[in-house]
Amino acid sequence: VGVDLDLIPPNLDDLRDDTARILDALAALDHKGMYISYPVLQDISDMLRVQAWSIRTVIRAEEVIGLLPVGRGIFGVAVDVGTTKIAIYLVNLQTGDVVGKTGVMNPQIAYGEDVISRIAYCRDQKKGRCELQRVVIDELNDHIQEMCAEAEIETMQIVDMVFVGNTAMHHLLANLPVDQLVFAPYVPAVTGSMNIRARDLGIEMGSGGYVHLLPNIAGYVGADHSAVILSTELWQTTKTVMAIDIGTNTEISLVHKGRITSCSCASGPAFEGAHIRHGMRAAPGAIEHMQFIEGEIRLTTIQDQLPVGICGSGILDIVAELRAAGLMDEKGVFIEDSQYVRIGEEDRLEFLLIPGEKTANQRDITVSRKDVNEIQLAKAAIRAGQEILLAEADIKPEDVDLVLIAGAFGTYLNVSNAIAIGMFIDIPDDRFCQLGNAAGMGAIKALLSNKCRVTICDVVQKIQYIELTTNSNFQDIFLKSMYFN
Amino acid sequence: VGVDLDLIPPNLDDLRDDTARILDALAALDHKGMYISYPVLQDISDMLRVQAWSIRTVIRAEEVIGLLPVGRGIFGVAVDVGTTKIAIYLVNLQTGDVVGKTGVMNPQIAYGEDVISRIAYCRDQKKGRCELQRVVIDELNDHIQEMCAEAEIETMQIVDMVFVGNTAMHHLLANLPVDQLVFAPYVPAVTGSMNIRARDLGIEMGSGGYVHLLPNIAGYVGADHSAVILSTELWQTTKTVMAIDIGTNTEISLVHKGRITSCSCASGPAFEGAHIRHGMRAAPGAIEHMQFIEGEIRLTTIQDQLPVGICGSGILDIVAELRAAGLMDEKGVFIEDSQYVRIGEEDRLEFLLIPGEKTANQRDITVSRKDVNEIQLAKAAIRAGQEILLAEADIKPEDVDLVLIAGAFGTYLNVSNAIAIGMFIDIPDDRFCQLGNAAGMGAIKALLSNKCRVTICDVVQKIQYIELTTNSNFQDIFLKSMYFN
Repeated sequence: VGVDLDLIPPNLDDLRDDTARILDALAALDHKGMYISYPVLQDISDMLRVQAWSIRTVIRAEEVIGLLPVGRGIFGVAVDVGTTKIAIYLVNLQTGDVVGKTGVMNPQIAYGEDVISRIAYCRDQKKGRCELQRVVIDELNDHIQEMCAEAEIETMQIVDMVFVGNTAMHHLLANLPVDQLVFAPYVPAVTGSMNIRARDLGIEMGSGGYVHLLPNIAGYVGADHSAVILSTELWQTTKTVMAIDIGTNTEISLVHKGRITSCSCASGPAFEGAHIRHGMRAAPGAIEHMQFIEGEIRLTTIQDQLPVGICGSGILDIVAELRAAGLMDEKGVFIEDSQYVRIGEEDRLEFLLIPGEKTANQRDITVSRKDVNEIQLAKAAIRAGQEILLAEADIKPEDVDLVLIAGAFGTYLNVSNAIAIGMFIDIPDDRFCQLGNAAGMGAIKALLSNKCRVTICDVVQKIQYIELTTNSNFQDIFLKSMYFN
Repeated sequence: VGVDLDLIPPNLDDLRDDTARILDALAALDHKGMYISYPVLQDISDMLRVQAWSIRTVIRAEEVIGLLPVGRGIFGVAVDVGTTKIAIYLVNLQTGDVVGKTGVMNPQIAYGEDVISRIAYCRDQKKGRCELQRVVIDELNDHIQEMCAEAEIETMQIVDMVFVGNTAMHHLLANLPVDQLVFAPYVPAVTGSMNIRARDLGIEMGSGGYVHLLPNIAGYVGADHSAVILSTELWQTTKTVMAIDIGTNTEISLVHKGRITSCSCASGPAFEGAHIRHGMRAAPGAIEHMQFIEGEIRLTTIQDQLPVGICGSGILDIVAELRAAGLMDEKGVFIEDSQYVRIGEEDRLEFLLIPGEKTANQRDITVSRKDVNEIQLAKAAIRAGQEILLAEADIKPEDVDLVLIAGAFGTYLNVSNAIAIGMFIDIPDDRFCQLGNAAGMGAIKALLSNKCRVTICDVVQKIQYIELTTNSNFQDIFLKSMYFN
C-alpha cells in the first residue's frame, strides 16, 4: 500500500534523523513498528529534500520498501519463466488491472534447449550459473522497461514481483544450486516460497522491492505448477479434478476428497515441435490443426500463412487423424494404402502432409514413423502419469469430474484428438477445460494477494509427490500407453 | 553459535529439499523456527554434498548465516573507522580472544583530509559516494584477508562484523546519503543501529554474515562515540563522569545522576598534526613529548628516531611548557626574552624547538604564533564543550568525579599539561583516566554480545544531544577559553 506523508523539515528543535522522521509519521497514522528497507535508506535524504518533505511511502507488511512522489501509482510484475518461453505481466497493484503483457523467448535457449543441458553448462563452466541467471534477468529488465514506457510509468513505481517457473528455472533465476536437480533423487535446494530483494537479483525496479517466488513441489514439479494450483484453487473443490500442464515435463495433479497428489512425466519436447522432422514452435506458418474431410487433408496454419512446419497441436491432430483414417496401425506403423503414404527417405514409409509447392519454403512437409514414435513416447508418458495418480487414489478414470489443461499447447490442442490417441484418460470431452496460461494467472493472483501467497504454501506442503521413475507400475503402464486404440 | 549436524542424505523415501533437511535437523536440536540466509542458500547443495552431509551451521538468532565444515572455528571482526585511521580487530567468537589487530590509514584521505571535503567530493562526482565506500571496503577486505592468513583461518569463518565510526564514516561505509550532514541542522539519514548483509556492502566474509553498525547519536556524534559509551558503560555509574574522545571533532558526554548529555566540538585537526607548520601524525620520528628541564629543551620522539616533526601530544606539551616558562603570554603571544624565541619567516616571532642539525631532514623545527593559535582554537572548542555540558547539568567542574579520555591522542597526551593550557576542566589530574581506543573496545564488546547491542541502542535513545553552534553561551565561553591562565 502507499501512504502519503507531509513531514515537517528538521530544525534545531527537532533533530530527528530522516528515518525516524518517516517512521514517526507512519506510526502517527497507525503504522507502528515499521522499518525502512536498506536500499531505500540509500536514497532517503536526497529523496525527502527533492520532494520537499511530502512523500509517498510504499509499505509491505512492516517494511517501507519504496519512496515515491506523493500520489504516484504502484505497480507489480508477474513473471512465468518457462524453459522455452517467458510471459511477463505488468499489473496495477491498486486496481488489480493487468496494464501490460508480453511473451518472449527464454534467452537461455542459447545454452541448451532443455533444462538438463543448461544445468550441464552450469556444471562445466565457471560462473555458468551466474551467466544463465544474468541473461534471463537482462531480458526481464529490458522488457519490463519497455512495458513501463508503454504504460507511461517509471520502473521505480514497480515495487513487487512474483516469479513462477519450473524448479530448474526457479533455481536459475534465484541463482541457487542446480546440479543436484539432475542426479537422483532430484531434490531441490529450496522448495518453500522465497522473498528475495530485487536488487540482490539485479532486477531493475523500485530499490526496496522484492521478488516473491512461489514454492516448488519437487525437483520436477516447480513453482509454475504451484501457480496452476493457485489459479485453479484446486484445494477448494470437493470434486475429483485433475490439472495437467503439458510441456517438456508435464506436471499433473489430482485432487480427490480434498487430497492433492502430483507427479511429473518426462514427456519430452515433441509437442513443442522438437525432435519432429518438420516440427516447429507455435509461430506464424505453423500447421496448428489438421483434419481429413471426405478424404482430403485440411490444414490451418497460425496467422493463415503458408505452411512452414508443424507445431504441437498440429502433430497431435495428424496422428489422431491418421489413426482414425486407418492409415496407421495401433503400434503407429503406417499402412501403405493411401495416396498420402509414400516411401520416403531411407526407404521408409512417410506421410505426405502437404507437397512443397504449397509450402513457404517449397519443401514437402511430411511425417515419419519416427515422428509418430516421438508422439507415442510423449503421450504415453503423459497418460501413464494420469493412470498412476488414479491408481494411487484408488479411483477409475470415470470418477474424474473435471480435467483442467494448462499451458499454451494445452490451450490449442484438440481435446477429442488427445483423448483419441490415448494421451488423456477416456472420459467425455465436456469434462475437459482448457485454461490458457494458468501459471501466469496464478502468478498474478499471488502478486495481488499476500493471503494467496500464504495459502499456496500451506497447500503445497500438504501435496503428496509421487515419483514415477521408481513406481513399480510405471513401466508397464507406460508401455501399454504407447499403443493407439 | 555453531551447531554441527549429521544429516541423512536424500533418498527415494525422503525427498526433502536441502533447506528443509537442515532446518528439520536444527529443529530436532531445539532450534525451531529457523530460516537460512539467502546467500547461504546459493551454495547449500554443493556444500552439503562436498561435506558428505556433515556440516556446521552458524546461527544468528533465527537465521542460519553460514555453513562450515564440522568443528571449524567461528570468528568476527570489529572495525573502528576514523576519518584518519582505521583499527581492525579479529576476534574468536567462541573464546572472545582478540587474535589479530591492525591499524591502517583511511584511504579516503586521498579524497579529502576532513569529512567536509569528502562529502563535497560525493556531491560533485557522480558515483563519488560509491567510490569513497569502495576504497574503504577494499582496504578492509585486504587487511582482513591478511589477518586471516596470519591467524590461519579462512575468511568464510568470519561470520559477524561490528562497525563503528563517526556519523560521516558510518554513512559512507553503509553507502547512505551524506550531503545533508554538512548543511544545518546536520541530521543523519539513520541514527538507529543497522544490520546490513556483508555481501550488500561488498565485504568478503562468510556469505550470510552481517555487518552490525552501532547507533549514531547525532550528525556529529557518531557510532564511535556510542562505542565509547558502551565500552565505559557510562550509563551504569551513579557518579558524575565525563567521556571525551578527541579528534577533528571532539565528542563529549557527561553522565550526571544517570542522565547522559552529549555534544560535539569542532576542534579541528591541529592535534592530528594538521595546520601546524611542522606538524605531523603520530608516526616514527614525531616529537611526542617536550619538557623544559633546567631551561633546557628535552624531547622524546616516537621510536626514538631523529625528529621529523611534531605530533599532537608534542604540540600540546610545547604550548604548555612555553606558557609555564613565561615565553608566551595569556593570549599566546611569544615573549622575545629567550634564546629559543627568534624572529622567523615574515619577520614574525617563532619558537625554535630544535635546530636543523639535530633533525632527520636538516631543517629547523619551529613553532609559530599561528601554530599556537590553532591549538588555542582547538583547546577552546574542547573546553567550551565541557563547560556547556556542565552548565546544562547545572554543576561545577569540581562536581566531576572522573574524566575518561578516549582515542590515540587522548592516550598519549600529558593530562597535567592539558589541564594547564585549559583544554580540560581544572580538577585534580588523578580524576582523569586515559583509555586507549575505547571506541574499538566498544566495537569488540558489541561483537561478542547481542545484549550489548540492544543495551547501547536503548542508552543512545535516551541521550540528550546538545547542539553547541546554536547555544547562546557557546561563543562567550569559547572566546574566554582561548586564553591561557
